[in-house]
Amino acid sequence: VIVMPAATPSPVRPVTWVGGPEGHLRLLDQTRLPTEVVYKDCTDVDEVWEAIKMLRVRGAPAIGIAAAYGVVLGVGEAKNATLAWPKAQQVIAHLKTSRPTAVNLFWALDRMERTARQALAPVMNLSSFQERLLREAHAIYAEDAAMCRAIGEAGAGLIPAGGGVLTHCNAGALATADYGTALAVMFVAAEQGKKFHVYADETRPLLQGARLTAWELQQRRVPVTLICDNMAAQVMKEGKVQVAVVGADRIAANGDTANKIGTYGVAVLCHFHGIPFYVAAPSSTFDLTLADGTGIPIEQRDPKEVTHGFGRQTAPEGVAVYNPAFDVTPARLISGIITEKGVIRPVTAENVRKVIGG
Amino acid sequence: VIVMPAATPSPVRPVTWVGGPEGHLRLLDQTRLPTEVVYKDCTDVDEVWEAIKMLRVRGAPAIGIAAAYGVVLGVGEAKNATLAWPKAQQVIAHLKTSRPTAVNLFWALDRMERTARQALAPVMNLSSFQERLLREAHAIYAEDAAMCRAIGEAGAGLIPAGGGVLTHCNAGALATADYGTALAVMFVAAEQGKKFHVYADETRPLLQGARLTAWELQQRRVPVTLICDNMAAQVMKEGKVQVAVVGADRIAANGDTANKIGTYGVAVLCHFHGIPFYVAAPSSTFDLTLADGTGIPIEQRDPKEVTHGFGRQTAPEGVAVYNPAFDVTPARLISGIITEKGVIRPVTAENVRKVIGG
Repeated sequence: VIVMPAATPSPVRPVTWVGGPEGHLRLLDQTRLPTEVVYKDCTDVDEVWEAIKMLRVRGAPAIGIAAAYGVVLGVGEAKNATLAWPKAQQVIAHLKTSRPTAVNLFWALDRMERTARQALAPVMNLSSFQERLLREAHAIYAEDAAMCRAIGEAGAGLIPAGGGVLTHCNAGALATADYGTALAVMFVAAEQGKKFHVYADETRPLLQGARLTAWELQQRRVPVTLICDNMAAQVMKEGKVQVAVVGADRIAANGDTANKIGTYGVAVLCHFHGIPFYVAAPSSTFDLTLADGTGIPIEQRDPKEVTHGFGRQTAPEGVAVYNPAFDVTPARLISGIITEKGVIRPVTAENVRKVIGG
Repeated sequence: VIVMPAATPSPVRPVTWVGGPEGHLRLLDQTRLPTEVVYKDCTDVDEVWEAIKMLRVRGAPAIGIAAAYGVVLGVGEAKNATLAWPKAQQVIAHLKTSRPTAVNLFWALDRMERTARQALAPVMNLSSFQERLLREAHAIYAEDAAMCRAIGEAGAGLIPAGGGVLTHCNAGALATADYGTALAVMFVAAEQGKKFHVYADETRPLLQGARLTAWELQQRRVPVTLICDNMAAQVMKEGKVQVAVVGADRIAANGDTANKIGTYGVAVLCHFHGIPFYVAAPSSTFDLTLADGTGIPIEQRDPKEVTHGFGRQTAPEGVAVYNPAFDVTPARLISGIITEKGVIRPVTAENVRKVIGG
């Protein structure tokens, strides 16, 4: 039997595989949080693609994991062993079109493709092929959970006792296999008995900070205050924040970091107020093929996310909207990058190489 | 007959007095924009207080004007001439409790109080008392419209031809008697044939930028793109913005400026990107009794504005929220203050005194 790796006892499980190779993927539908806890069972690859596109599952590591399980589902649709490899290739190519910025998606899918190619070599039957792919998806899941825990341990010392911590968007358990990246740092610090207060940017347009981060912190009883994005500067000015920690969707070889839109602004505000600004991310978020952030593609999303944010129209008909999903924070504004292999500090191409390898 | 001063041909009339001394106040209900254009008729002072508190009428100058007309309504409730003065005092004190930050409210009400005191001296009947107060409210209205036009003319030269202009919240015709303050600068520049593009911050939590500024600019055919507040930094980084112009709710003697929450963050981002940051406001927005911004009271508003943005709950039950309505931008981050008497630049206590007097 293939058993899904045990997660730490978390109140939230964004991604769960139910059953064996013929099983299905269960996603916590994050678009329904925090007012409803609803799971969506995906039984084919199109449902996984839709769930990623529509942000039912989101967060760079979680997207990669969901996509890996999506490959298992997709290969199950192959009619026979001969068609398994073309099917795997087709499914992988399709899943890559769901969201362009998070590198973990491509990283996980490339890993599944390598596994599929190797698994085919000894010519096997369809069910053992699926089994092999499921084992790999489970391995990606388990490694991510372990990396997140290690990130938390590497970064917990950066949380100032009695201080305030600002975060943007959601880089918590909901964004990963378990535990999170930026929030892992806070969760481990809290486990260590440190007292501190988190300020969560609501993160327009989709309010991941309000809906997800505030909810996760509440679940784990970490004190949190919700603010609108445009209040971050004032909160800093009032001396309420001693450090900022955010996640990442893709990090270039020099440390330039793509993350949720608004992250760059937070970094500039931290710089102005003399507040350290940290990125927390597993090594799978690094894209060492890119020398710097200029090569990172930035997803543009539907204007309706801005104009019809709350189910109600809140902007005039026909108004032009600019809605980039991400921005790139230059390495020079980042005090350090917290990875499962240690903290990269100062953030330079040389130090990235040293810690991450490559 | 007392006739309301003619406004410039504007598509928007936030505040209108209908009829003579026994008339009533008609407010464009700005909470219903941009999807509905609905007017609210106020026939007593409580309705005016509620309209100011609930932001049906908002923007520092418009609040002052609405409150002045509110005094006329309130005095009409006095049973006889002897009770007119105590009634006026009571009504003025009550209206002052509606919103604490905008100084124009206090400025307009103090002016109405002086007028009432002078009008009573020769002992008059109630209807001539009301008539005198209505004339004063009309004068406040007319002066504001003229000041706004003058602000537009003083600042139009600061709009770079072919460039981008960022604004935050709404400092347009909707916020004044007519024409606006920050937007007046853009409207006059457009009248002069200048081509430029406006980026409007949506301005959470109440989305005055999305609902009001984008709508006003559309009405006057000035090209506008709506962005979430957290996208301003990215838009600046991309070189799309050459100048920022915002309004003000209260300006201290040294130029420190209270304005809608998020304004301070915009000023910091402009500073970092080397983009000039201007405030546009009539001289009635200056509070020369305050040496600097530390003395400006900051209104804290209902957490529900953040957690239940537009009828739907978007944050977990019971989460703590910080919801200041305003922030204070220090004078050193302000490139200039555009007033009807000219541009104060650089922004120092001495230059404020020179241009504004006092």
